[in-house]
Amino acid sequence: MTTFDHPSFGRVSDDRVFIFDTTLRDGEQSPGFSMNLEEKLRMAEALADLGVDVIEAGFPVASKGDFESVAEIARVVRGAVVCALARSGGKNDITAAGQAIAHAERGRIHNFISTSPLHMKYKLRMEPETVLEIVTAGNVAARNLTDDVEWSAEDGSRTEPDFLGRCVEAAIKAGATTINIPDTVGYATPEDMECIFAMLKSRVPGADKVIFSAHNHNDLGLGVANTLASLRGGARQIECTINGIGERAGNAALEEIVMALRTRHDQYPFTNRIQTEKLLKLSRMLSTTTGFDVQPNKAIVGRNAFAHESGIHQDGVLKNAATYEIMTPESVGWSKSSLVMGKHSGRAAFRDKLAALGYTLGDNQLNDAFARFKDLADHKKVVYDEDIVALVDDEVRDHQRIRFLSLDVSAGSRRPAEATLELEIDGELVEATATGNGPVDAAFNAIRSAYPHTARLALYSVGAVTEGTDAQARTTVRLEEDGKLVDGQGADADTVVSAVRAYVHALNKLLVKRARTEPEALPA
Amino acid sequence: MTTFDHPSFGRVSDDRVFIFDTTLRDGEQSPGFSMNLEEKLRMAEALADLGVDVIEAGFPVASKGDFESVAEIARVVRGAVVCALARSGGKNDITAAGQAIAHAERGRIHNFISTSPLHMKYKLRMEPETVLEIVTAGNVAARNLTDDVEWSAEDGSRTEPDFLGRCVEAAIKAGATTINIPDTVGYATPEDMECIFAMLKSRVPGADKVIFSAHNHNDLGLGVANTLASLRGGARQIECTINGIGERAGNAALEEIVMALRTRHDQYPFTNRIQTEKLLKLSRMLSTTTGFDVQPNKAIVGRNAFAHESGIHQDGVLKNAATYEIMTPESVGWSKSSLVMGKHSGRAAFRDKLAALGYTLGDNQLNDAFARFKDLADHKKVVYDEDIVALVDDEVRDHQRIRFLSLDVSAGSRRPAEATLELEIDGELVEATATGNGPVDAAFNAIRSAYPHTARLALYSVGAVTEGTDAQARTTVRLEEDGKLVDGQGADADTVVSAVRAYVHALNKLLVKRARTEPEALPA
Repeated sequence: MTTFDHPSFGRVSDDRVFIFDTTLRDGEQSPGFSMNLEEKLRMAEALADLGVDVIEAGFPVASKGDFESVAEIARVVRGAVVCALARSGGKNDITAAGQAIAHAERGRIHNFISTSPLHMKYKLRMEPETVLEIVTAGNVAARNLTDDVEWSAEDGSRTEPDFLGRCVEAAIKAGATTINIPDTVGYATPEDMECIFAMLKSRVPGADKVIFSAHNHNDLGLGVANTLASLRGGARQIECTINGIGERAGNAALEEIVMALRTRHDQYPFTNRIQTEKLLKLSRMLSTTTGFDVQPNKAIVGRNAFAHESGIHQDGVLKNAATYEIMTPESVGWSKSSLVMGKHSGRAAFRDKLAALGYTLGDNQLNDAFARFKDLADHKKVVYDEDIVALVDDEVRDHQRIRFLSLDVSAGSRRPAEATLELEIDGELVEATATGNGPVDAAFNAIRSAYPHTARLALYSVGAVTEGTDAQARTTVRLEEDGKLVDGQGADADTVVSAVRAYVHALNKLLVKRARTEPEALPA
Repeated sequence: MTTFDHPSFGRVSDDRVFIFDTTLRDGEQSPGFSMNLEEKLRMAEALADLGVDVIEAGFPVASKGDFESVAEIARVVRGAVVCALARSGGKNDITAAGQAIAHAERGRIHNFISTSPLHMKYKLRMEPETVLEIVTAGNVAARNLTDDVEWSAEDGSRTEPDFLGRCVEAAIKAGATTINIPDTVGYATPEDMECIFAMLKSRVPGADKVIFSAHNHNDLGLGVANTLASLRGGARQIECTINGIGERAGNAALEEIVMALRTRHDQYPFTNRIQTEKLLKLSRMLSTTTGFDVQPNKAIVGRNAFAHESGIHQDGVLKNAATYEIMTPESVGWSKSSLVMGKHSGRAAFRDKLAALGYTLGDNQLNDAFARFKDLADHKKVVYDEDIVALVDDEVRDHQRIRFLSLDVSAGSRRPAEATLELEIDGELVEATATGNGPVDAAFNAIRSAYPHTARLALYSVGAVTEGTDAQARTTVRLEEDGKLVDGQGADADTVVSAVRAYVHALNKLLVKRARTEPEALPA
């Protein structure tokens, strides 16, 4: 087994796979998935807690916002290398990247340039020899700023092998310690990726003293398979994202790769640091942050990934779960295999279910929640765990300085919407009426009138908890005040009531947050 | 190149891959994806039109509804083999399957039994020799009813190789013409699947006179790769579903496999009959039918699959699309690479965009739509094609006997919702007021009061066209009358107005459908 010393990881052995998460860079680059500084910071902290080895935090030269996000993540996040992207030949790229990671516990500069004939000719409009010179210059410049330097051959999978070998050799000589060969356009097959890495490992001088890295896109549905094939070829770092988000069809999904490695350890005998039982939490956090849910049949983290509907499968699972489950739902953070609740489920089963989901309700709360559950189950084939969470979430909130009491709205196509709202604020009844652009806007204006505040509405998203005529609307409201972010959730058959519950929930959380950060009053 | 005669396909050569779609069986089996007879029929006709070779239409013995769906599809659909599922040892399974496909142009019975140690011991509670006897009996019984018989070794990928070989040999001897080795639980790696088929092809007597088939699930994200590896091993039928729906994490996605085969024909030199430019249409039809959208980064058919957001990628694509696109958007049915429209887009660009989307508007209609587009673009980063379709869809509808004029709703938590509605019906103004369980229910009741009808509300689903604070709500309403189904769509910033537009749209379509099927009046 080969071993060598890496500037960030120390002595590394050949069976260790490093997980490089690029949710905040490649993932954030896709339409609709942009995040602000605090959202990125929360994700970065959760990723470090999950156990990823490297967090690619952004592309500092791209914008002031990107620079600040990377710098803040570098300052705050501990336990993972913080990595900044830079073009090998960009004018200020490497300087900006170096500044952004200056305060990181361990910081990496990741520089890249295209090496494929198509990209060199049409995008860069450069001769190969010029590209080679830039590879050297970029890595030397990066290495002057940090010991941990990664270089990527953009469109590497479509690069001519001899030229790719020369570029990799130049990068290693210039000081790169990680060499990434991305399948930028999602064109490669598993056979391609295995061959490329095996070729580089056997041919390039110095290849035994660096970590090779795979970065696979999913345009043909092969992202995970190409990543596993890269490991067979000799790669030991894998670049991936939560939920597989990223440019176009996205990157290989972190949760799928990690669970494939774990489930098929017989064929992929590698180790990594990921705490798999936190995977679902990360997936959910990303969905809430971006407002995009994964589809029900998304592997590992989709709502149906562990649900069994057909009689034959249910029968098998009851006899022995291994007949139809290759991993346990608990191993990735689900509370249990989707226990299907429906209209025949009784109070005891409901209470058990709640306990399994982490909710302990008092008798009155339980009565209310059970009545709402029966209501829902009456006209709904399958009641999912998340339906139940949506039902009871409202019942179990503590520290509610503000309580929702009632709402009247009038709206339509003929006149401005108007909302009349009753809240209980610190025990006092407060009523307010407001108009707005649509019923939700009017209701939010009424909240602002009843309880004046300066927090800005940063996100308002509505998703049916489960779709169809019987859906409860589940709303998320995010408020921002002085850089602090809070998310509130609400659920109700009426979308406007659901939105108001979410807003009030967010407001209560904001008050708690305010109280925590205000300086204590001095004794008189 | 080997060739042999298949009962349904005639002389087949070794480079032909048969596409077996199981959207209506395995896909429909997943929670939330069930379809009724007419929905299945529409999907089956579209699948035949797409060019699939075999449509697995259901599991006739499972329920009366399943039997009728298979029988109706067999009666009506032409150009594809219609296949019915049956347990090899089920009491009435094979008889029911045979009856269901009796009127098919070409009909197949697909019988299966588990062969893995785990499934035989815990699920079937049978000795291997008993299973072998059932394999023979099931295939003989099926072969008595049709020439085209498929047999599946359930949990085949976890079956002991020698026993699997014996089972396959028994099935071929008993008359099976297609042998399917499913990876039922999504456990296999590409290497596993290639080995299994290569082993069976080389060892089993008669293997050169049947078609081997792969059926891969996606629990570890390897569904497509396992399918391609199966072809390398010698399989020539692939079982898959539209959008990759199916049990748990779903099946390998038809659209991904077909585009991988086409894009990498250099490595997978096979032919099939799929008309790829219809793939997006099928994906959309399935989403609308089931109410579940694919995620934005879904390969081939997701909203972002051909969208380029980052400056570097946009720059490359403008210089030469091949720098970042390995297939053209048009080849799978997109109108063009996602041209990003925003607030700086002018009238001319908007008109061009509409033309590309297939809409030609008169001047007044264009003015209205452009004003609404500017409204939307003002507070929205990216305006997608589908946003624009949602905007103009209302403007271009012909044959509107019923027009939406205005709506007033009042709702909230304190009293029943009430809606007052104005419609223009055949040129006359009609007003109605109704109450209901929530604002949408009240509005629908008002429509029923203004224009009495007996059609049943079969589906009501709300999805934000694009999510966030700036979303237009897009609603689908499906009405059912005497077995006829129509879908209506509506879009508006106000969800209730959006729902009413959708209902009115559906009602107009129903009136057109009624007019077409009513017998003409006899001359007096």
